[in-house]
Amino acid sequence: MDTSRWPRRLAGMDTEDFLHHAEEFHGHLSPGVVAGAFLVEAAGRRLGPSEHLNAVVETVVCLPDAVQLLTPCTLGNGFLQVLDWGKFALTLYDRMTLAGVRAWLDPARVARHERVAAWYLRRGVKVDKERVIADLLGVGRDLVSSRPVRLEAALKDTARFPTAVCPDCGETYPTRWGERCLACAGRAYYRPAE
Amino acid sequence: MDTSRWPRRLAGMDTEDFLHHAEEFHGHLSPGVVAGAFLVEAAGRRLGPSEHLNAVVETVVCLPDAVQLLTPCTLGNGFLQVLDWGKFALTLYDRMTLAGVRAWLDPARVARHERVAAWYLRRGVKVDKERVIADLLGVGRDLVSSRPVRLEAALKDTARFPTAVCPDCGETYPTRWGERCLACAGRAYYRPAE
Repeated sequence: MDTSRWPRRLAGMDTEDFLHHAEEFHGHLSPGVVAGAFLVEAAGRRLGPSEHLNAVVETVVCLPDAVQLLTPCTLGNGFLQVLDWGKFALTLYDRMTLAGVRAWLDPARVARHERVAAWYLRRGVKVDKERVIADLLGVGRDLVSSRPVRLEAALKDTARFPTAVCPDCGETYPTRWGERCLACAGRAYYRPAE
Repeated sequence: MDTSRWPRRLAGMDTEDFLHHAEEFHGHLSPGVVAGAFLVEAAGRRLGPSEHLNAVVETVVCLPDAVQLLTPCTLGNGFLQVLDWGKFALTLYDRMTLAGVRAWLDPARVARHERVAAWYLRRGVKVDKERVIADLLGVGRDLVSSRPVRLEAALKDTARFPTAVCPDCGETYPTRWGERCLACAGRAYYRPAE
């Protein structure tokens, strides 16, 4: 693989280290995780250093893992919010100032690169993901558009909800759901077995 | 800190390694991540090895990071689903057989341990999180209940939605949302700046 056009560093991490970590964490190397790294890089550079970095991703696919690998924002620590909008875009912002930068994989830019376009624009042809990844590593920085944005409010919900023990299952749940937990209110995704 | 009662291994990982990784990934060590590790361990042991492991967490707080650290399931690879139910519980299941084990931090068991109870049952007293973590490491295995469950269907959405370029912003979006993307349909969480 011709690695001469790869950036030596990607979003502040040694590129090879990032690829190694991404494969380990995500389970395999995907075009989405690699493209996501370029979004993180573009938004982060334009935003500049922030002690209070938050992230919003606009898709559940691949992109959240790039953010979790390359920023201090994880789903479980609350600094990463996830919207299931199906858009390959993210915003990094400072939760104190609410100033941010939104970055996205720009279809007009992607269209110039046949293999990446076949993957990203879902042209229905079978794509060789390894070659798409190699292409992305070569031209990724050219495919991203970004713009400064301002949030109306931090998306992290900092309210602490009172909890109670559910009278039906005996587990704790937030009382904002009412008299019982959501599972006992009929929304369980499971049924008992054995 | 008295580490003599800590398990040497936790959910298949050396306990000290896990604590180190958790601090790095999550940003700090939290009782929730440590308690989450005991849930992963309990569900995983009872389920047994699975080549097709999926996870569901029933809260967005802390628990997703324990799963992402200790299993192959991440948000971005689609094997971790996240319900914002506010319940400290998770299910590990095999996405082929749909057989799983659900594990939760059991309030009746937690109630026997004063500091952990003050944290988990939100008794309104100020808790020393480091001491709660130390307590959890000592008695965590006694605090978890679990039961075999069966899912009706895998929660991972494997359908690939057709995408199009939004006529307003020029970005790609899934056409299932209609004529334009959700941001252009009025749900943007940001406004342009500068």
